[in-house]
Amino acid sequence: MEIIKDISQMQKTANTLKKEGKSIGFVPTMGFLHAGHLSLIEAARRECQTLVVSIFVNPLQFGAHDDFNTYPRDLTHDSQLAGKSGVDILFIPDAEHIYPGGYQTQVAVPGLSENLCGRFRIGHFQGVTTVVCKLFHIVKPDIAYFGQKDYQQLIVINKMVADLNMEVQIKGLPIVRQKDGLAMSSRNAYLNERERKAAHCLYNSLCRAKQMKEEGITQCSKIISAIRDIISAEPMARPEYIRICHPETLQDIEYIEDRALLAMAVHIGKTRLIDNCFL
Amino acid sequence: MEIIKDISQMQKTANTLKKEGKSIGFVPTMGFLHAGHLSLIEAARRECQTLVVSIFVNPLQFGAHDDFNTYPRDLTHDSQLAGKSGVDILFIPDAEHIYPGGYQTQVAVPGLSENLCGRFRIGHFQGVTTVVCKLFHIVKPDIAYFGQKDYQQLIVINKMVADLNMEVQIKGLPIVRQKDGLAMSSRNAYLNERERKAAHCLYNSLCRAKQMKEEGITQCSKIISAIRDIISAEPMARPEYIRICHPETLQDIEYIEDRALLAMAVHIGKTRLIDNCFL
Repeated sequence: MEIIKDISQMQKTANTLKKEGKSIGFVPTMGFLHAGHLSLIEAARRECQTLVVSIFVNPLQFGAHDDFNTYPRDLTHDSQLAGKSGVDILFIPDAEHIYPGGYQTQVAVPGLSENLCGRFRIGHFQGVTTVVCKLFHIVKPDIAYFGQKDYQQLIVINKMVADLNMEVQIKGLPIVRQKDGLAMSSRNAYLNERERKAAHCLYNSLCRAKQMKEEGITQCSKIISAIRDIISAEPMARPEYIRICHPETLQDIEYIEDRALLAMAVHIGKTRLIDNCFL
Repeated sequence: MEIIKDISQMQKTANTLKKEGKSIGFVPTMGFLHAGHLSLIEAARRECQTLVVSIFVNPLQFGAHDDFNTYPRDLTHDSQLAGKSGVDILFIPDAEHIYPGGYQTQVAVPGLSENLCGRFRIGHFQGVTTVVCKLFHIVKPDIAYFGQKDYQQLIVINKMVADLNMEVQIKGLPIVRQKDGLAMSSRNAYLNERERKAAHCLYNSLCRAKQMKEEGITQCSKIISAIRDIISAEPMARPEYIRICHPETLQDIEYIEDRALLAMAVHIGKTRLIDNCFL
């Protein structure tokens, strides 16, 4: 596995691969790799001739009160994991090279960034689309892989790529969960033992919502209310939002007709967790 | 000369050229080609193996009260001119394909877009950077050519390309002027005979500013005041802005030390003209 830190070296390498006609699969991450990332890496490994994984904790997508400084980092472990997983190139750029002094340019997808996490993490998705746009110009992937846990991120990026005529195929892969259902997330590392148990209320409530849908309940307010009850029953949990929306427009819906997205953000102690499922 | 209207056909063609190792020179225009455009086309023809010119009157860069509807268009003449000038591909996309229903994504360079024209044409440069970002993804140029008449546009695009790690070289070419000094512009077509004469005050004032600088005057307010006098002496002219700024940051300066940019926008009747020079 080759480790590249320099942006122009990554670009040169990508250009050479392109000229050789080799497809590039790309998994952009913020590191602290877990089974969720590995599922993306495995898919990319199967489908592409060259596999690039990036590790970059993107300051632009963190708000002033977010956890940029404490976000878990473990490059040694990440490198080992990447090496074992058949990654060809681990791209680890420095923040001062990604955003050099005087950096200005922003890429935004305002409509899809509005609802759900976008209501609470102002500027977050603009930070995501900006860095992903840059990473795509650097790594030049044929296919890029994202997890469906960050569902809004996935469709915001999909929209950016389509709108800006970028020739990258975006693939969203299913959420990987722990045995008790908790969605894999680097932020799970923040949870102490009691919080870890409390966090189970997210998956519980998704299951309850699916059950209600199967029972024929289509009124979103009823489902959301039931979820709120489950989460409120957990003293350590504080819901930020619970919404049911159209899976493409991310606009709230009142009644479930076709496929709907149930998405939520819940604070467990100081840790903000997100989860979602289709109903 | 091949005429391409379809975005994906243009992309396929560009990809094929890339694979063949042929360099692509690109001159993006809004059509109604004049000697200014031709100087860009000639440079691109000299320097690149393939020459692509686009014609697209970009609605996103026009404000509600701007001249989008009346902007001069003459595709027949443009095609003839392009054919004679050795253009290989004339790319003429439709607005509904560039901005299909539900289009959202915006690319912005807020800092450099703030001063000069940016103060008066709110959203203009965001429209420019968004469409140029898209066009670069479609045409995949090695070198793209812009005129220095739209100096702010040139350096905003330069900044976007650098910030977003786009591998396109941006070249800015000198302003082409008519015999009496009026900068070439598609909007000159709006001027009637009297306005055409009145428009001479822009070039006159640039010359006066250069003369003052040569005489050792470095205080910007003095130079600007002299220019304002020249323009005010012309009854049909109404200055929008006259500024002297740093040529890279576009921030206003008080005294000229190194090279400075003098830039102005002046209404001649209903026509808004811009011009600039280095002092």
